[in-house]
Amino acid sequence: MRVVKFGGSSLANGPQVQKVLNIILAEPKRRVIVTSAPGKRSDSDIKVTDLLIKYANCVLQKRDYQPTLNQIWTRYQEIADFFDISQNLLQPLKQELIELPLTNYANYDFLMAAFKAHGEKINAQLLTLILQRQGVAARFLDPKTAGLLVSDVPNDAAVLPQTYQNLKKWRHTQELLIVPGFYGVTESGQIATFSRGGSDITGAILAQGLQAELYENFTDVNAIYAADPRIVTHPQPIQVMTYRELRELSYAGFSVFHDEALIPAIEGQIPIKVKNTNHPNLSGTMIVPEQHFHTQNVITGVASSNHFAALYLHRYLLNKEVGFTLKLLQIFYQFNISYEHMPSGIDDLTVIFDKRQFTEELRQQMCQKIQEVLNPDYLEWIDDYAILMIVGEGMRNKIGVMKLITSSLAKKNIGLHMINQGASRISIMLGTKQADAPIAVSEIYHQFFN
Amino acid sequence: MRVVKFGGSSLANGPQVQKVLNIILAEPKRRVIVTSAPGKRSDSDIKVTDLLIKYANCVLQKRDYQPTLNQIWTRYQEIADFFDISQNLLQPLKQELIELPLTNYANYDFLMAAFKAHGEKINAQLLTLILQRQGVAARFLDPKTAGLLVSDVPNDAAVLPQTYQNLKKWRHTQELLIVPGFYGVTESGQIATFSRGGSDITGAILAQGLQAELYENFTDVNAIYAADPRIVTHPQPIQVMTYRELRELSYAGFSVFHDEALIPAIEGQIPIKVKNTNHPNLSGTMIVPEQHFHTQNVITGVASSNHFAALYLHRYLLNKEVGFTLKLLQIFYQFNISYEHMPSGIDDLTVIFDKRQFTEELRQQMCQKIQEVLNPDYLEWIDDYAILMIVGEGMRNKIGVMKLITSSLAKKNIGLHMINQGASRISIMLGTKQADAPIAVSEIYHQFFN
Repeated sequence: MRVVKFGGSSLANGPQVQKVLNIILAEPKRRVIVTSAPGKRSDSDIKVTDLLIKYANCVLQKRDYQPTLNQIWTRYQEIADFFDISQNLLQPLKQELIELPLTNYANYDFLMAAFKAHGEKINAQLLTLILQRQGVAARFLDPKTAGLLVSDVPNDAAVLPQTYQNLKKWRHTQELLIVPGFYGVTESGQIATFSRGGSDITGAILAQGLQAELYENFTDVNAIYAADPRIVTHPQPIQVMTYRELRELSYAGFSVFHDEALIPAIEGQIPIKVKNTNHPNLSGTMIVPEQHFHTQNVITGVASSNHFAALYLHRYLLNKEVGFTLKLLQIFYQFNISYEHMPSGIDDLTVIFDKRQFTEELRQQMCQKIQEVLNPDYLEWIDDYAILMIVGEGMRNKIGVMKLITSSLAKKNIGLHMINQGASRISIMLGTKQADAPIAVSEIYHQFFN
Repeated sequence: MRVVKFGGSSLANGPQVQKVLNIILAEPKRRVIVTSAPGKRSDSDIKVTDLLIKYANCVLQKRDYQPTLNQIWTRYQEIADFFDISQNLLQPLKQELIELPLTNYANYDFLMAAFKAHGEKINAQLLTLILQRQGVAARFLDPKTAGLLVSDVPNDAAVLPQTYQNLKKWRHTQELLIVPGFYGVTESGQIATFSRGGSDITGAILAQGLQAELYENFTDVNAIYAADPRIVTHPQPIQVMTYRELRELSYAGFSVFHDEALIPAIEGQIPIKVKNTNHPNLSGTMIVPEQHFHTQNVITGVASSNHFAALYLHRYLLNKEVGFTLKLLQIFYQFNISYEHMPSGIDDLTVIFDKRQFTEELRQQMCQKIQEVLNPDYLEWIDDYAILMIVGEGMRNKIGVMKLITSSLAKKNIGLHMINQGASRISIMLGTKQADAPIAVSEIYHQFFN
């Protein structure tokens, strides 16, 4: 049995939903379908989820929400019309949207969560109607009925462990189950949504709870690539990769989906397949646990990201000073700043941050505090910083990988600010200037893949 | 004006002291001489300092100390005889040694400090007599008279800042000053010794306080070498290096002297020359501040050390967990363990320790605590760990250094457990298996120096 999730662009309009139908019906093992809300039909389009947020805000601010409500319903109506669904079947769905402002919510945040969740919910109900009209024994399964329980945080909920117990009874159902993604219900019965990668998480939770043999994640890219196609022309698609390879590549900018959304599937050791709804015959990318992974490739992928900055500290005899790092971490804690990595020399320390968490003011305040408390001989903030991740389970027992990498970079006259390789040996992290990063990615890619 | 320090082997017997005399008299700028206690004359010999410790222990345990006292005095008598010093001039020195047990000390630790310090003190007085007999206007200068004040820690004293004020008045003295190394006096007038690198520290303090143009450190090696002569046959002597290069190389096993002993000279920006008493015509090694350093060499030296171990921790989503490292450092703090470096991946962390601080029991307790508090998916203690330091100011603006290093290692099939390079870029730290370390040192040395 497979759990299959479709992204927003796969369910954006009639023709797209037709592709989804074809995919579902092509493989009898596809027994559980997770929906997203209708996504953009073109670059200038608005996602239904964003319209629902507008709808909620109008309600909260007591402004006229009717035009927005109409705009939302039109999206579903358009899909329904494509499949010739009768108006009386649609009426209850429309009614649900209309009645959203009339329900009691614990607070404004729960109101917002419930509004947003209906993008997925209505779409799942609509898909059920469409499938039923094709003669398929499809059943809409609400997270509440399914037992998908989440923590009491309206817009950043976490799945509760009990969910997996609850899901057991759905393992052997004969009907095709259509489940809306993105949300669950709290123990008191309120709707609460996940924060990011919403329907990906729902799919991953179901895949674990139902012990799926495969979790298929249909999106609008053909595969995960060994390098960013904006940097490398026609990079190789990755056929198979491990969970942790994905995680390390996601870190430096691979963004097919938010890797944390896959955790429930990973915990359940469920293989994950990434496929393109528009090209379902392409093999896509399979993501598997380490123990089921064999590869001929030395590296699986290379990625870079510009959203880092580095703080360089030098102080004579720093290495002898017990508590220096501890004090530094306490300052970060005090400023609510998380750091990424901290390569150290004997008397120096480089701290690498995700710079998106800083305002210029916060950065200055933190640096000033560090200067006061730790009194380094030298403190420098390096803003022109890019991180490269070279990732591959195949590097583990292979000697000479660093040689190939550093040769590629030396050839292009690229200097390395930082090299960080721990004991895991499935990844190498490099620091370069931002302008050098795409050149470095391209060189390293060609070194290993051509 | 130069401050000149002679090590224990340079003052071990008459013929060695003759070499010291020649060195002092060859250069009129050598105005301040710092002595060590007489060292070993052969491999099986006992240093006078160790005999003094034995003497002190006999006194403390009320055992017969006369044979030890005789043994100590014989060492000085032998040197005095070589230079034909009359017995009546020597009598006060001998008397001082004899009266050591009769003095009042604040406690046993101060007794021990005073006994140990007399190895240097008697030697300085004797050298003064020898110089005076050659017609030199030499003056024995006791740390007390000099104003070399130290903290109240009998066997691990630190120099007090006031010392530098006190030393000013000796800057323009016309006499040749002979100062015993290794100790100072506390504010209450007790003798207290430095912990390690004793007379090196005294020399460095005097060099700063007297604003010497050069601090000459005479020992029994020709120079600091670019690699350990036990690993590389006839390695190149380092002509000039910077303070911080020395510090980074010392870290991984370069042991000409304890680099911390040089701090006072470094603070005063005094250049330091390492020379061999036995071959004073060889140019030795000059250690200078960064700003006075120019080099054609890419690397200055390479060293390795086996006294490290690594702890590898893996936990899925570790990187997202604010406070993970903080908790880890708190555990280290609780166990009074200091760590050296902490290279990190996305979900893993390697902590490198100086393993000499662990007993097997302490290691197990600490690992157990980490397991309990942080609950990593995977924890491994890697005992077979060596650290290589490749150091060079010349690496700073040079691209392709890593390429040369990793090429050398790949050629010999050497795997890298860890690569750590921060922003300073004057050193690269590598982790290898212990058996690979000498091969790696040798390969890297030959890559850069041949």
